[in-house]
Amino acid sequence: MPPLKRSFIRFPTRVEFGAGMLAQLGGIARPFGKRAYVIFDPFFEGSQTAARALSFLHEAGVETIENYNTRPNPRAADMDEKAAECVQNGCDLVIALGGGSAIDIGKAVAMVATNGRSSWNYAALETHPYEEITEPPLPLIAVPTTSGTGSEATIYSVVTNPDLQRKCSIRSFLLYPAVALIDPELMTGIPQQLTAMTGIDTFAHAYESYTNIKSTYFSRMIALESMRLFAENIETCCFHGDNVEARGAMAYAALLGGMAIAHCPCTIGHVLGQCLSGWTDAPHGGSLATCTAPIIRWTLPEGLPQLAAVARVFDRALPEDDRAAAHALPDLLNRLFERILGGRVTMRTYGLTEAQQEPFSAFIYENYQGDMGNYVKVPTLNDIRFLVRQCCG
Amino acid sequence: MPPLKRSFIRFPTRVEFGAGMLAQLGGIARPFGKRAYVIFDPFFEGSQTAARALSFLHEAGVETIENYNTRPNPRAADMDEKAAECVQNGCDLVIALGGGSAIDIGKAVAMVATNGRSSWNYAALETHPYEEITEPPLPLIAVPTTSGTGSEATIYSVVTNPDLQRKCSIRSFLLYPAVALIDPELMTGIPQQLTAMTGIDTFAHAYESYTNIKSTYFSRMIALESMRLFAENIETCCFHGDNVEARGAMAYAALLGGMAIAHCPCTIGHVLGQCLSGWTDAPHGGSLATCTAPIIRWTLPEGLPQLAAVARVFDRALPEDDRAAAHALPDLLNRLFERILGGRVTMRTYGLTEAQQEPFSAFIYENYQGDMGNYVKVPTLNDIRFLVRQCCG
Repeated sequence: MPPLKRSFIRFPTRVEFGAGMLAQLGGIARPFGKRAYVIFDPFFEGSQTAARALSFLHEAGVETIENYNTRPNPRAADMDEKAAECVQNGCDLVIALGGGSAIDIGKAVAMVATNGRSSWNYAALETHPYEEITEPPLPLIAVPTTSGTGSEATIYSVVTNPDLQRKCSIRSFLLYPAVALIDPELMTGIPQQLTAMTGIDTFAHAYESYTNIKSTYFSRMIALESMRLFAENIETCCFHGDNVEARGAMAYAALLGGMAIAHCPCTIGHVLGQCLSGWTDAPHGGSLATCTAPIIRWTLPEGLPQLAAVARVFDRALPEDDRAAAHALPDLLNRLFERILGGRVTMRTYGLTEAQQEPFSAFIYENYQGDMGNYVKVPTLNDIRFLVRQCCG
Repeated sequence: MPPLKRSFIRFPTRVEFGAGMLAQLGGIARPFGKRAYVIFDPFFEGSQTAARALSFLHEAGVETIENYNTRPNPRAADMDEKAAECVQNGCDLVIALGGGSAIDIGKAVAMVATNGRSSWNYAALETHPYEEITEPPLPLIAVPTTSGTGSEATIYSVVTNPDLQRKCSIRSFLLYPAVALIDPELMTGIPQQLTAMTGIDTFAHAYESYTNIKSTYFSRMIALESMRLFAENIETCCFHGDNVEARGAMAYAALLGGMAIAHCPCTIGHVLGQCLSGWTDAPHGGSLATCTAPIIRWTLPEGLPQLAAVARVFDRALPEDDRAAAHALPDLLNRLFERILGGRVTMRTYGLTEAQQEPFSAFIYENYQGDMGNYVKVPTLNDIRFLVRQCCG
């Protein structure tokens, strides 16, 4: 393990966790405000979940303005529009109930409502000068309905600008939600594929944070526990989706994955995965599944102690020898991902052509050296070419 | 492990951790206030550490009012006097640099300064009606100089009322420090005995929180990591006190121990230990050392999986069988405590007489059933008599 170095812990978000916790939404929300701007994912329109959430708020004396108009990869313009609606209606509180996109929108709305400029102005991009968030956002209550992004526990809001074909993050400690209300009963209905995809995202957060050379005792502790909960529960969640206990453990894994990347960010896996999603329509979790095992094979023998520790999370009976344990990891992960995704996925599966491999590799190398530089093994351009070939299967 | 149940995470304290971090005190303090009430432990009067801390504050434009008048087991009246001095001098920020008592005083001063009544009014005692803390305290920056209580990361301030011969806690989420500034370089000079005593306190926090039946994924994760860091570093801290790396790891262990009890409190060990300190002059860490192994022997075979997990923290080569691993724990701990304390300590060592055993057992049974009821094995009066006899050696 790397030695002890300068580090921080900052996690102001209050987490309220438990089966049936949605019923506490009104009581939790009321001290924060009297009129809530409530963002739901579209398929909650007319749902019992939305009706329950709203009635809990109304019973507690919180008025609501609802918006069901979210979509994946939220655009800056959409976020700004909702922020305007929130301000015009005099809302003093934001609630986001849905997947990572809904919560990311909630963060941007709460922040733009008090800071005033377009959300894009605050997005950090190496080539893009961005503004500081100076005003505390409106309080945000995040109610995740998937177990993946961990956005309920991070300092990030991912925003897309289609004009510039760029997707990047607004990052600030001020973006932490005031409350993360996590109710595993909201997750029992998630279909198997989405459960698998979002679960792999959680694993990737934890794995990449854990193997980041800037990791700390705190971030590693959280990341390893997130991976342990993923390892022990993802298959039950996929194949016995109504198991509230397993759903709760995966919701916790996602939360810890979010806390981990809020303290020490992702590296090479999310670079390859997000670029694949940018070049093709690969879903986020699937894109990560294509590159995880190839990255680990290429990494070894670098990062041996870390990779051995990760391997033992998946199989406690692995040999004591770190080398043998770590080398077992890629196959362990590949077999698990195949079982939960129903087959093997590669970058080719998602449509990356052989002709695209070279420009894709060059694009990654040119644009993401900063993020990749914190991984236990730093790739050259040739390494990336090799990795992309391996990821294409 | 117990199943997943309703739980929370609340840790608003910002932790800034690292060797040499004291030099950042001014920059960290300035955004919180312009005039700081600074509480030091008495032996810092005239020290280089105090001079440096004050000059960092003055350089950053923070004026200071200093008070070096702390003592162990701080009294409510002392706390109130300091709070009055803080208010009279128009301080808008409190800084506490010292051991657990200094930080506990800092918490009470910051809280009484804004809430107005005597600190004793807010102390929770089963037989004592107490007042709610309603106003946010002044911001507190806690700078621990020992690795034990973890007060920099808890919701407690322990207060003593000599008139009533009672020692109890003010408890509130509002008591969390705004910042915990942890600099292991401040700890390299702690003498061996104090290092051992405070280290055992950290272990006891983590052990008791871990084996509390109300523990959660989050509290258990933190508690187990705290014990791991204690196991790997306490001897180096005791016998090579200038090892900043080991001091840093123990400071982290103490912080995590504090976070653990802030999320799930101590049980039987602290009851026995604190009562012993009340009846004799046993130092806190020593009192905990007298009862740890006897409690674990009496507990088994209850709590088998938890105790086996704790045992494996101290010796990874223990048998796979939980029963064998757990039964090895009391001797492992006894040997470790003997090495670091320089000999075996019992309740008899600290002056508990044979004649006192019966009234002492009855006193514990009558007054602390609530706290003990959360341990994995709940003691009867006869159990406590048996335990006290064992603790007397």
